[in-house]
Amino acid sequence: MGRVDVAKKYFGAGVTDRERAAFEGGIALASIYHQFVGTPISIRGDSVKALERAIGETMKLQPYRERIDVKVDAGRLKQRGRGSPYSYEALRGEHLDVEVETRYRGARVRARLRYIPELQYSLMHIREISG
Amino acid sequence: MGRVDVAKKYFGAGVTDRERAAFEGGIALASIYHQFVGTPISIRGDSVKALERAIGETMKLQPYRERIDVKVDAGRLKQRGRGSPYSYEALRGEHLDVEVETRYRGARVRARLRYIPELQYSLMHIREISG
Amino acid sequence: MGRVDVAKKYFGAGVTDRERAAFEGGIALASIYHQFVGTPISIRGDSVKALERAIGETMKLQPYRERIDVKVDAGRLKQRGRGSPYSYEALRGEHLDVEVETRYRGARVRARLRYIPELQYSLMHIREISG
Amino acid sequence: MGRVDVAKKYFGAGVTDRERAAFEGGIALASIYHQFVGTPISIRGDSVKALERAIGETMKLQPYRERIDVKVDAGRLKQRGRGSPYSYEALRGEHLDVEVETRYRGARVRARLRYIPELQYSLMHIREISG
Repeated sequence: MGRVDVAKKYFGAGVTDRERAAFEGGIALASIYHQFVGTPISIRGDSVKALERAIGETMKLQPYRERIDVKVDAGRLKQRGRGSPYSYEALRGEHLDVEVETRYRGARVRARLRYIPELQYSLMHIREISG
Repeated sequence: MGRVDVAKKYFGAGVTDRERAAFEGGIALASIYHQFVGTPISIRGDSVKALERAIGETMKLQPYRERIDVKVDAGRLKQRGRGSPYSYEALRGEHLDVEVETRYRGARVRARLRYIPELQYSLMHIREISG
Repeated sequence: MGRVDVAKKYFGAGVTDRERAAFEGGIALASIYHQFVGTPISIRGDSVKALERAIGETMKLQPYRERIDVKVDAGRLKQRGRGSPYSYEALRGEHLDVEVETRYRGARVRARLRYIPELQYSLMHIREISG
Repeated sequence: MGRVDVAKKYFGAGVTDRERAAFEGGIALASIYHQFVGTPISIRGDSVKALERAIGETMKLQPYRERIDVKVDAGRLKQRGRGSPYSYEALRGEHLDVEVETRYRGARVRARLRYIPELQYSLMHIREISG
């Protein structure tokens, strides 16, 4: 019995493939948020590009990930104190725009983490589900 | 229009209440894992109790959480080098046994994070879904 | 040879006790910042108290800590959207006021992490060093 | 008055440049450890390279960093379950070999984080201090 089948027996009997894909979508977004918030970033230098790439490469190792697109919103990074050693920021949820696609057997979920100004909140949400 | 309704419009039209509850269950478990892994803990002193409590109190602030039970498995903490200043450990996934219950409208999910020896993996899984 | 002496041989020969205590002070503050930033908190409920306590109990396990005082500045937590499930915040550096005392043999350091408005920066700094 | 001078006034009067550089060395290593421990990594694919690079690019934004060399020790990554979706690991301190050089005015510190088998501990230590 492969490890996938071993894992499956821990899931409740009534869980549909779509529900499983939705569960994985939630895991994907929350993992990114809580792992990387607090990391130093700046509009100067290569930190944004390097961090976007590292988030994608590491987080796609989690099971059932089809695609991870990460953007750190440079427009939300303050242009402050350029000459100063204190002129960088810590990554916050508001900086992140992440879209993940998860797939479990025939079911697919497209989920997103994005700051929603009218909520003043970085909302994790399911954009689309199918299968 | 309340903020809950505002949030709802960002979700795809076809998402069921159960799928939403499953999504929240995944967010809950991954948030706990990626926020707290790495924290110093020890079987001596009050670190385990204090950390279990803080995880519960902070993470239940996320939306749609009904219950969060956190156990740091002291049996998996090594009894090492008691007299030494280096005799503590960093929290790993293997130490965590977490059960969360999420609810979205009529749907409920009971999800768990637990180390599964036969997988050599800390598996996040849905135990039960209803509604 | 005890583990303390084993550790000592990895340090360069010219490192003074004061320099060692200063190094530990830096470790203490940065560990707290990068471990806990991102955690959900709210002025309502017990999350602030529970988190302050857990930070103190876990982080004092690190070697050469004499004292750790953690305050999450509730005055900086927004009083927002009380009825809404989105009415909490993620811990940021600006919320933290931490003072640690480290000691290595005869040397002592009192170090602090606190938001400094005139710098727009959460500054880790050594308040006092002796020995 | 520049921001560097503003920051300086928060430090105790007796703090030497070497002690300041040592303090920064501790901050550098602990920031890396507590920010990134828990991140998924695998010997397959590009996660190790991408993460090493992101750690270097983001963490060198902190003040007074001269150089950051990060190596994730692939030899310590288990070669497990290659065909399975669960065949990756979470970054632990044992995987990290980090050397940082900090400089404050005329003083320089070379500090390292590395797993020390005889201590069974990932030791942050000052290799060399000068100035």
